[in-house]
Amino acid sequence: MTLEARAAALDAANPLRHCRERFLLPDGVTYLDGNSLGALPAAVPEVMRDAVHRQWGTGLIGSWFGEDAAWWGLPQRLGDRIGTLLGAAAGQTVVGDSTSVQIFNTLTAAARLRPRRRLLLTDAGHFPTDAYLADSVGEMLGLEVRRVTPHELRDAMNDEVALVAFPAVDFATGERWDIPGLTAAAHEAGALVVWDLCHAAGALELELDAWNVDFAVGCTYKYLSGGPGAPAFVYAAQRHHTAMRQPLTGWTGHADPFAMRGTYEAAEGIGRARIGTPTVLSMLALEAAIGAFDGVEPATLRAQSLSLTGFFIECCDALLGGLGFEIVTPRASERRGSQVTLRHPEAAKLVPAAAERGVVGDKREPDLLRYGFNALYNTHADALRAATTLAELTA
Amino acid sequence: MTLEARAAALDAANPLRHCRERFLLPDGVTYLDGNSLGALPAAVPEVMRDAVHRQWGTGLIGSWFGEDAAWWGLPQRLGDRIGTLLGAAAGQTVVGDSTSVQIFNTLTAAARLRPRRRLLLTDAGHFPTDAYLADSVGEMLGLEVRRVTPHELRDAMNDEVALVAFPAVDFATGERWDIPGLTAAAHEAGALVVWDLCHAAGALELELDAWNVDFAVGCTYKYLSGGPGAPAFVYAAQRHHTAMRQPLTGWTGHADPFAMRGTYEAAEGIGRARIGTPTVLSMLALEAAIGAFDGVEPATLRAQSLSLTGFFIECCDALLGGLGFEIVTPRASERRGSQVTLRHPEAAKLVPAAAERGVVGDKREPDLLRYGFNALYNTHADALRAATTLAELTA
Repeated sequence: MTLEARAAALDAANPLRHCRERFLLPDGVTYLDGNSLGALPAAVPEVMRDAVHRQWGTGLIGSWFGEDAAWWGLPQRLGDRIGTLLGAAAGQTVVGDSTSVQIFNTLTAAARLRPRRRLLLTDAGHFPTDAYLADSVGEMLGLEVRRVTPHELRDAMNDEVALVAFPAVDFATGERWDIPGLTAAAHEAGALVVWDLCHAAGALELELDAWNVDFAVGCTYKYLSGGPGAPAFVYAAQRHHTAMRQPLTGWTGHADPFAMRGTYEAAEGIGRARIGTPTVLSMLALEAAIGAFDGVEPATLRAQSLSLTGFFIECCDALLGGLGFEIVTPRASERRGSQVTLRHPEAAKLVPAAAERGVVGDKREPDLLRYGFNALYNTHADALRAATTLAELTA
Repeated sequence: MTLEARAAALDAANPLRHCRERFLLPDGVTYLDGNSLGALPAAVPEVMRDAVHRQWGTGLIGSWFGEDAAWWGLPQRLGDRIGTLLGAAAGQTVVGDSTSVQIFNTLTAAARLRPRRRLLLTDAGHFPTDAYLADSVGEMLGLEVRRVTPHELRDAMNDEVALVAFPAVDFATGERWDIPGLTAAAHEAGALVVWDLCHAAGALELELDAWNVDFAVGCTYKYLSGGPGAPAFVYAAQRHHTAMRQPLTGWTGHADPFAMRGTYEAAEGIGRARIGTPTVLSMLALEAAIGAFDGVEPATLRAQSLSLTGFFIECCDALLGGLGFEIVTPRASERRGSQVTLRHPEAAKLVPAAAERGVVGDKREPDLLRYGFNALYNTHADALRAATTLAELTA
């Protein structure tokens, strides 16, 4: 069977193929950069039109608490919806602010729950903003920040470790780490975990509650397709709600925000994870976007994602041999996220050249090509086209 | 001359009357809550349509650096535009995140510039989020936070004061404070100032550079009409750029963000005030909204604002005598922002009752009615209608 025939057969058998029409993709483009910015969900334009004209223009201030608009409820309403994709029961997830801000706020709140411990362990290959903010939190709280790889984590654990801050999936290599295993190792030493789910939410099967995760943060503009710079989410396990104290004591997290009291008193429950005034327009776009996951089981999503990335690796093996490429992402499916990273000395030229031919991915310094697969809209034909295009450009 | 005739004459002579058509206001509504959420600027809907369909849907990841979209440049492009309304030369203002987040980030950065001083003075009547975040910064940096009124500030200054954090206009009473005078008093004692301009930007004549202000933050959804929860702005005087170190070391403020280095190195200049990934959709709405100020001189805006609030006070004097109202906002024009606050024991009932009759303002606990005037779209007829409605409701 040719690769073309296999792609066609796999796409025909795809249980999520009806989801592709939930997105507006430009004609002729194979979009494999949804791990950086998700494609436009079809429901978004009408929701944004309504948000601007009716909710803002006509409803005005009344829309903050209006029945059919209810902007005030967005951070928690959206949080609960995203929670269903994280394996998180309602009342533990909030949407707002940027991932960077949430990392700072959450690392600090978590470290305050382990006041007599002096170490913060973070991934040596973590996304830069995670690394920078771990250092900043370390400076402010007097914690020593150590960078270790996930492989080294178990050996690095001891009773001085307050926090372990790792990504679920490496942003550069696409390697997936063992959340439940590493969480258990951290807990065994009495530490807390803060997982970065930027490259996991909407792509992996996650069971934050069942895995006993303490905290997690993530962005919503990658696999969740919430729009450019869409707000982040934060998950805090219910058992920490009463004790957790965040440094970003914004007024919307107050127990009685409209009483306008002079001193901060955190809201009960996850409401205390709210910070400032919600960015309503961006949140309404995200709310419309999340609808693309309606009726989609995480297990089905994950299976389809692995089928796509696995088939792409197969195409690369078949078509790119001897052309200078190396497959960086692990071949074992349980060790993959939803992207495949290739290495090539000409990566910086190949990525834009492929984009000119309609295959959009991205590059990471110095020599990596990243191709991300969104199981809701990407196809096996996309995977084959990407590999074929890279072969044509380097043959 | 009747009040009706005076209102008509003043509106006919209004040099900004052409600006009203730059907003889409619902028929029959007198909207005097633009000090909470500005009305919808007419340019926004088409920009948002383009942002969603073309920039996101078609441009996809390419829009981050595309020529006619250039999302990456938004925080500084928007900052410079808002800077023109603040009396700030280009390269000192950045847009992003919420006001609460910016307050935390800026207070910390400012306090770090005065490491041997132990006091943070903040307004006893400050907006809650400012008070809460001053306390949080105080806790993290080991500063004592003292709440003093602007009247008490000069007496409270001494050489232990690191920072003075005050609002330009009191959110509850509408009283305007003396930015240049209080800034000079703080500087005389060697302290730095952080002004909250939430109720000032787009309403007052501001000269941050000329007044030697150190830092300022503010929101963009009130008089700037940037949309619900539109991102905040931060101003940092150029003289502080090299030394200032913020706790929120997000990746977009890095000197070379796409090199993805493992340690933080702040960008030169105001670029270091950037934090996380910009909330693009909300920023594009704000960019469109700011166009409503094109060609409007701040002095003209301020004169028109004072004419509106002054006439509203005149109408209240004429129509509300003996009906239980007290005018809380100072009568002296130099002591007013752009809102008038009334006190009435039935405030909590009167505000929604007036809104039902088409006059929208808001209430603040326990007994305040706030009516904000946006000089770009409010009229003297609006002011008269508001006073008349309150009189009808209480007569």
